[in-house]
Amino acid sequence: MNKKPLILVTNDDGIFAPGLKKLIEIARRFGKVVVVAPESPMSGMSHAITVKIPLRLKKITEEKDYVEYSCNGTPVDSVKLGEKIVVRGKPDLVLSGINHGSNASVNIVYSGTMAAVMEANIDGIPAIGFSLLDYSHQADFDAVDGYIAEIIRNVLENGLPEGVCLNVNIPAVQKSEIKGIKVCRQAKGRWDESFDERTDPHNRDYYWLTGMFKNGDTAKDTDSWALANNYISVVPVHYDLTAHHAISNIKKWKMNVK
Amino acid sequence: MNKKPLILVTNDDGIFAPGLKKLIEIARRFGKVVVVAPESPMSGMSHAITVKIPLRLKKITEEKDYVEYSCNGTPVDSVKLGEKIVVRGKPDLVLSGINHGSNASVNIVYSGTMAAVMEANIDGIPAIGFSLLDYSHQADFDAVDGYIAEIIRNVLENGLPEGVCLNVNIPAVQKSEIKGIKVCRQAKGRWDESFDERTDPHNRDYYWLTGMFKNGDTAKDTDSWALANNYISVVPVHYDLTAHHAISNIKKWKMNVK
Repeated sequence: MNKKPLILVTNDDGIFAPGLKKLIEIARRFGKVVVVAPESPMSGMSHAITVKIPLRLKKITEEKDYVEYSCNGTPVDSVKLGEKIVVRGKPDLVLSGINHGSNASVNIVYSGTMAAVMEANIDGIPAIGFSLLDYSHQADFDAVDGYIAEIIRNVLENGLPEGVCLNVNIPAVQKSEIKGIKVCRQAKGRWDESFDERTDPHNRDYYWLTGMFKNGDTAKDTDSWALANNYISVVPVHYDLTAHHAISNIKKWKMNVK
Repeated sequence: MNKKPLILVTNDDGIFAPGLKKLIEIARRFGKVVVVAPESPMSGMSHAITVKIPLRLKKITEEKDYVEYSCNGTPVDSVKLGEKIVVRGKPDLVLSGINHGSNASVNIVYSGTMAAVMEANIDGIPAIGFSLLDYSHQADFDAVDGYIAEIIRNVLENGLPEGVCLNVNIPAVQKSEIKGIKVCRQAKGRWDESFDERTDPHNRDYYWLTGMFKNGDTAKDTDSWALANNYISVVPVHYDLTAHHAISNIKKWKMNVK
């Protein structure tokens, strides 16, 4: 690629997250960077879009080959605003993250980080989501700088298959302990959840969601296995949710509509 | 099934939507019904969960074999509250809808209706989402009563393959015009979007998302084709987002991390 690529960067932890700062730093080595990120944390927002209130953009910084905005919307809104209002065209690449916490296994379904990536994918733009399995604000993102840069370089040089984006998860271990990268499939895990049930001072009940992740799928070709064994997991992702294998089964139904 | 099945019903248009009332009416012919639905419309909320504020439930109605609650959360929150707080166990079936508007093709990615269905699917509960391609409050849900009932009967009698739920979309035509049901795959459509750009009285810019659906996939095995040809579309859906076909391609990358 001779021309400097234009890279749109977003996340779901919000404009002030250290993971975003690190991803911006890496992205700027590769090209011009436009940042549009939520003004406040948006974890668990999945593919939500804002339709009830108008969206707004706020310019934070502008310098050579770099411009940074916050918005009052979700990660998916951020991608839409980045494309249609800031870039007014298609960036060459969309990056999302670095998320503070895992988006492996079933977490991808709830993830705002990965929803931003899927939104770019729907629009035909190569896109990668990065997540580090460390929820803390002090997470050490420097250890994985080299891996993230190599994944970005590969996508810029090789592209991605049509309709495919990437979900990259990184174990929270020292750089020396990382064994490499595994291209794998999403593990069939789920959350074993409950609600913490409380009563407010006005004697009304309220509920906080709590839960533990249960990995019910320990096969060696899964992202959960890769991460548990100190590999970085790379799952190619698409937005065709069809369970193709189930079509023939359901076609056998007897329908009796008068 | 000898015992009356326990059916949890939700939606994303909110507790007052006519589509929900119709789905409740049909569900009550099959068993005991528990309703937990958002207190206000939640279209476009996708798989969002509420983590910043506590969740609350409000009992609306209770009678023999029927209880109805609203909640201040999303469709996915509604399913979680329904299972963990109201039922305190697993219902035999989760139904979502009848949505006012299409959830065919790529719309499934943004849909709160289908996110509720997928949440039940993740929890191992058979689940079906119904949508009618008519956005109006006055949509005629009676015409499709028989088809919806037959789909529910089939799922209660035959079950669904493990990890599979159903996305059912219904064309907005007279009952006599409906040609039947097609089990099919999600079409590769997308929205061609733009923002309506305005300036508020304080001279600040704001943006409203607008768009037109573009169907780029007219194959006869798609939901878009079925609906355009007056068939009810039934797409089996799963939450494995892995693009399995792309794994071998990406495994060929050369990574050079020092």
